[in-house]
Amino acid sequence: MTDEQASGREQAVTDEVLASFGGTADPRLREIMQSLVGHLHAFARDVRLTQREWETAIGFLTRTGHITDDRRQEFILLSDVLGLSMLTVAINEPEAPGATESTVFGPFFVDGAPEIPLGGDIARGAPGTPCHVSGHVRSVDGTPIAGAWLDVWEADEDGFYDVQYPGDRTAGRGRLRSGPDGEYRFWSVLPAPYPIPHDGPVGDLLAAAGRGPMRPAHLHFKVTAPGQRTLITHIFVAGDPHLDHDAVFGVKDGLIVEAEHHTTGPAPDGTHPEGTWTSMHFDLVLAPS
Amino acid sequence: MTDEQASGREQAVTDEVLASFGGTADPRLREIMQSLVGHLHAFARDVRLTQREWETAIGFLTRTGHITDDRRQEFILLSDVLGLSMLTVAINEPEAPGATESTVFGPFFVDGAPEIPLGGDIARGAPGTPCHVSGHVRSVDGTPIAGAWLDVWEADEDGFYDVQYPGDRTAGRGRLRSGPDGEYRFWSVLPAPYPIPHDGPVGDLLAAAGRGPMRPAHLHFKVTAPGQRTLITHIFVAGDPHLDHDAVFGVKDGLIVEAEHHTTGPAPDGTHPEGTWTSMHFDLVLAPS
Repeated sequence: MTDEQASGREQAVTDEVLASFGGTADPRLREIMQSLVGHLHAFARDVRLTQREWETAIGFLTRTGHITDDRRQEFILLSDVLGLSMLTVAINEPEAPGATESTVFGPFFVDGAPEIPLGGDIARGAPGTPCHVSGHVRSVDGTPIAGAWLDVWEADEDGFYDVQYPGDRTAGRGRLRSGPDGEYRFWSVLPAPYPIPHDGPVGDLLAAAGRGPMRPAHLHFKVTAPGQRTLITHIFVAGDPHLDHDAVFGVKDGLIVEAEHHTTGPAPDGTHPEGTWTSMHFDLVLAPS
Repeated sequence: MTDEQASGREQAVTDEVLASFGGTADPRLREIMQSLVGHLHAFARDVRLTQREWETAIGFLTRTGHITDDRRQEFILLSDVLGLSMLTVAINEPEAPGATESTVFGPFFVDGAPEIPLGGDIARGAPGTPCHVSGHVRSVDGTPIAGAWLDVWEADEDGFYDVQYPGDRTAGRGRLRSGPDGEYRFWSVLPAPYPIPHDGPVGDLLAAAGRGPMRPAHLHFKVTAPGQRTLITHIFVAGDPHLDHDAVFGVKDGLIVEAEHHTTGPAPDGTHPEGTWTSMHFDLVLAPS
């Protein structure tokens, strides 16, 4: 068989599959599936995928599915380490100069986290150095946004989110609303760098690629307000040694914040914490929806 | 933000991810992962993938993983309906004129099926019209291949493989060796067309695409012999109404075989079956390995 015949045989398969999606009623689904088939087939042809490699891929996806449960989302991790998550963020970044940049959502968000009052503590026993986080929520024209909902979540000083521990403890996670002048503030613990879960198939892939699993220290935000685009982002702690090789490619310069260390009070809320404490200040600027 | 800036921001993500795989020790894995990232990112950019669509994809893969178990392989089904399985077959088809063509492996193979003697019956109680299947195994130069191992498996007349029933019954499945002159023959039941399992996420995708789940009637072969390339193929029953829209794109003209219907004996093996029986004849020509 000539190369030309082989190429024609392969193209015939692709053409047949593309045509099979031609009758998809929803035009957006049709567009997505035909593009997916085109790119997936181009990949297989470009690398001359072998049967054994195909089997390896099936096994990899199967293990990824089987390790995924209510507390672990290995497909999101896979999307994260392949940069698809950050690319999707980039594709959907609003064209609103001055708005806070977005980054990956990650697999550790939990819906319905406990509500705390303005100035309350989300740590709920999570181990770590106390950290006071504050700033203002505003729109790109500078208007303060009162009553915005902020979901915040983070790993503790040992690098684990609450859902990674056995049991049902909620810690390092909470919801609060911005005050009348758009101000938000809460206590938490200083986030620590941590490895993404790497005892599963995604960890095996990173190891085979010679890539580390570490993420630089960060605190997650999801901010919603009427008339504004939902902001999903982190603040990263300045000086973290992993800022230039985040396993999930989430770092943006504009999201890096100094954590100030203090040994004396009072804290911004007038309290006098015992021992060392820290503070971070960051304004959250929402794009119009 | 201008289109150019947006495009640059997206390309920067892709470049960072490609670079992260640059240290992969195994050059083949490096090639595969960098090609995969390039095509996956090109897909997301081409369709301007939204966050909600990304979430839908994560949910789809999660359900695909969770429905997959020892008896059901939804990722293979997914690969099949996206044509990736047949494309991989096409990419790896040996360049050996005269060799029997390959087709998809499918999700229903079971290792270690029961061995039957030459001329034995693989039906083992599977319901259907008796079918005598025979032919010769030979190499492309015409040399008979004695002692080749043939794994054969098929759906019964109700369209189900044994593993799709509750319990551990083995039926419509067996292994045998070709005789001294390369001949093979066995009894089975006439295969029936059937829908691929469509009560899961792959079925939902087919329905959304307006595609049917049917496969034309076929019998699977996996044939191995020293010095020869393993052949994975089917024979399809001529006249099946689904031959031109196989849900998994597996049909090749050279694999379509007439099933002869008989009401009188004797059968090719000298027996006198009761009632209607059928026969199919097909030579299996192996490419050199």
